[in-house]
Amino acid sequence: MAPQLDGFFKQVDDSTDHFIERLRKAVAIPSISAEEARRPDVVRMGQFLADELKALGVTVELRELGEQPGKPGLQLPPCVLGRYGNDKNKRTILVYGHYDVQPAEMSDGWATEPFELTVDEKGRMFGRGSTDDKGPVLGWLNAIEAHQKAGIEFPVNLLMCFEGMEEYGSEGLDDLINAEAKKWFADADAVCISDNYWLGTKKPCLTYGLRGCNYYSIEVSGPGADLHSGVFGGTAQEPMTDLTKIMGELASNDGKIKIPGIMEQVAPVTPEEESLYDSISFTMDNIYESLGSETTIHNDKKSTLMARWRYPSVSLHGIEGAFSAPGAKTVIPAKVIGKFSIRTVPNMEIDKTNELVCKFVEERFAALKSKNTLKVYPQHCGNWWVASPKHWNFSAAAKAVERVWGVEPDFTREGGSIPVTLTFEQATGKNVLLLPMGSSTDGAHSINEKLDKRNYIEGIKLLGAYLHYVAEEPLV
Amino acid sequence: MAPQLDGFFKQVDDSTDHFIERLRKAVAIPSISAEEARRPDVVRMGQFLADELKALGVTVELRELGEQPGKPGLQLPPCVLGRYGNDKNKRTILVYGHYDVQPAEMSDGWATEPFELTVDEKGRMFGRGSTDDKGPVLGWLNAIEAHQKAGIEFPVNLLMCFEGMEEYGSEGLDDLINAEAKKWFADADAVCISDNYWLGTKKPCLTYGLRGCNYYSIEVSGPGADLHSGVFGGTAQEPMTDLTKIMGELASNDGKIKIPGIMEQVAPVTPEEESLYDSISFTMDNIYESLGSETTIHNDKKSTLMARWRYPSVSLHGIEGAFSAPGAKTVIPAKVIGKFSIRTVPNMEIDKTNELVCKFVEERFAALKSKNTLKVYPQHCGNWWVASPKHWNFSAAAKAVERVWGVEPDFTREGGSIPVTLTFEQATGKNVLLLPMGSSTDGAHSINEKLDKRNYIEGIKLLGAYLHYVAEEPLV
Repeated sequence: MAPQLDGFFKQVDDSTDHFIERLRKAVAIPSISAEEARRPDVVRMGQFLADELKALGVTVELRELGEQPGKPGLQLPPCVLGRYGNDKNKRTILVYGHYDVQPAEMSDGWATEPFELTVDEKGRMFGRGSTDDKGPVLGWLNAIEAHQKAGIEFPVNLLMCFEGMEEYGSEGLDDLINAEAKKWFADADAVCISDNYWLGTKKPCLTYGLRGCNYYSIEVSGPGADLHSGVFGGTAQEPMTDLTKIMGELASNDGKIKIPGIMEQVAPVTPEEESLYDSISFTMDNIYESLGSETTIHNDKKSTLMARWRYPSVSLHGIEGAFSAPGAKTVIPAKVIGKFSIRTVPNMEIDKTNELVCKFVEERFAALKSKNTLKVYPQHCGNWWVASPKHWNFSAAAKAVERVWGVEPDFTREGGSIPVTLTFEQATGKNVLLLPMGSSTDGAHSINEKLDKRNYIEGIKLLGAYLHYVAEEPLV
Repeated sequence: MAPQLDGFFKQVDDSTDHFIERLRKAVAIPSISAEEARRPDVVRMGQFLADELKALGVTVELRELGEQPGKPGLQLPPCVLGRYGNDKNKRTILVYGHYDVQPAEMSDGWATEPFELTVDEKGRMFGRGSTDDKGPVLGWLNAIEAHQKAGIEFPVNLLMCFEGMEEYGSEGLDDLINAEAKKWFADADAVCISDNYWLGTKKPCLTYGLRGCNYYSIEVSGPGADLHSGVFGGTAQEPMTDLTKIMGELASNDGKIKIPGIMEQVAPVTPEEESLYDSISFTMDNIYESLGSETTIHNDKKSTLMARWRYPSVSLHGIEGAFSAPGAKTVIPAKVIGKFSIRTVPNMEIDKTNELVCKFVEERFAALKSKNTLKVYPQHCGNWWVASPKHWNFSAAAKAVERVWGVEPDFTREGGSIPVTLTFEQATGKNVLLLPMGSSTDGAHSINEKLDKRNYIEGIKLLGAYLHYVAEEPLV
């Protein structure tokens, strides 16, 4: 069945200017969660959102999250909880988004004022937070309003969770989600998160998997303090020499992980999965463009997508304690801390992976017969996440994409991590869907962040349509 | 023959309080050359020195060195040139020292005010510049004054060159030395530099050699900008992976240089040299103490001294462009610059060494078959220096040490570089001697820098005695 969406769509189109105006007001509030001095603006943005929701008849509670860890006296911005509709005969969808943004200043290289929504002749709406994540958050409000104005019954009960610290580690959110799992979120039948992007620029996607991340430190220390290389070069065993040898052995430069036992944990590729990649709208030119070079490990689309989504990788991030400034300094660093991480995938286990990594690093260090001292340990670990794309939550979204965009969506995974996804899945026990609004060129954390007008307006239609198809999906 | 020095020595002893007072006045002027805001203090210190010299009858000229390179409008402090005596029948000795100091603040961890000379019950005189290099510089003034007060004829003509930028790369000095080589410095028969330290704490040494230093950068670049390791880990070739592999191959952790052709340039050890090391006052406990650990490459004195003085070494200093802060950041750095240096010794040639290093790094990179881009180049190079310890300049100093300290000095080399040494040798064509005043535990560039009262007072006697023995050395 196809729900009657035409009235809703027409209302969205007719409200375009109004919806852009709402986004303009939101972008104008510089709700930068990473900057302490902007905390009042973050709070103001949460209040703006709450007021807009209340005006639409949504029941709203602002949940205070207490002081920011490590910042005595600095209150976290509230989490905005909303409920729209309470009909036992309807499904209930829990949606998540965030109202804080990344830092932005003209001096970073913006072409326009970052906190002034600026629409160009191509319909690109520039402004910090336009695509990440104010546009998608307001999408839900706009969908509710268009239903009201068109006189169309809202197809589901909607629960909302909009936080204000996403760009600064979602401080306090996990505790809130777990605390509300059996309270505010108790009725949720499924979860929908709009905080990611299409794989490219042409075709929408539905995202059903994310890699995890285990982040490690390797500390090598020896001398009591930094040394002068003239005096001690050739007589002291240098921690940097040990460390670079070990870091150089973690992976080959064509991406092969050299730590035994890691690849053995990776789920085998099924013929079904094998067939998925060819049809996905993605080309090597896409990655060359985003990379700014052609220095890829693989030369074909399928290997590249598999490497990003379904295989683990090792990245070397840097070294703490060594000389890192421009110029020359003849220091022998006394203690250096190498940082690297492994992106994890099914069926890798965090503990098992940590054990293999530490064992390998310790063995390689032992082989050096160094007099220096080694410590290796995980700094933080977040698990991978994979949902079932066969669930009605995904089927409904796929139908909505076909209806709004006229194409079947790509079913994709992502290489990065969105930890809240796993938290929602574990706390509610329900299927989680990532339903992106913006495209791959939106520059979420960069200068000149934008959301295309088309992605915003069709995106509002998509959210509404998704909820109608959710209502029609058969019970399982 | 042994010159009659008793009257001079007695006068030095009698003037102890006066000489310490002179050092106190000098230490009180925070002549920090590295801090722009302290430039007036550096100039004030130069003026203080000039005034003290003039009061002793020394002819003084303050040579302006122009603006500091890269700092328009900031004048370099003047170089203080002095001449004491102009007797054609006497030898002429050119002495060098510097009147600027390293930065110092209580908050760095000093136990006493760094710019207030504080003498403890053990006779340790704490204060920035006490040993490096205000004590040694004032030593020459004190030696002149003691001769005058004791009514003893000064045995030589003394030329002086005291600079104010030594702790900031001796900006402007090379040009001045070369310009004055045939003018102010034209009469010099030999050069004496007091800007280094005893090998240990018990026995004076005379230093006749220094290692050189070739400093290199290895740049590896690929992507157009820093990348997110979630999105690009496993798909982009990472410059850090290439760089750590190459840096890890430069040396073994027991100090062996793995760049072919380097060791082949090193002068062989002669039986004569071989026999020198055993008698030198130095123990493994000395290096363990200065290292703050027992993480030495060698376990015996002779190998350790040879590794410091007469063999080249490779030190890895750090990486520019990678993540270097505490904590965790999931970045794939787009461009990383590894910094390392080779300490050079006779008969290594700068150009040949650079060629071997670049060839090796390029070959190792080529073997990686990476798509990234490599650049390797020397940042700066300074040659090694070795003087003849058989020269009368050294013989005179050795006799002075025996007379003042009652022991034969160790003839030593140093692992580090003092570039001005080579400049003086090349500009004047004369023998250069390094005659240290302070001991190895003075902490020249550290907190709680000190000069022992004994080293200061006996050091003044040593400088005077040295000049008397210089006058007695047979003509060659």
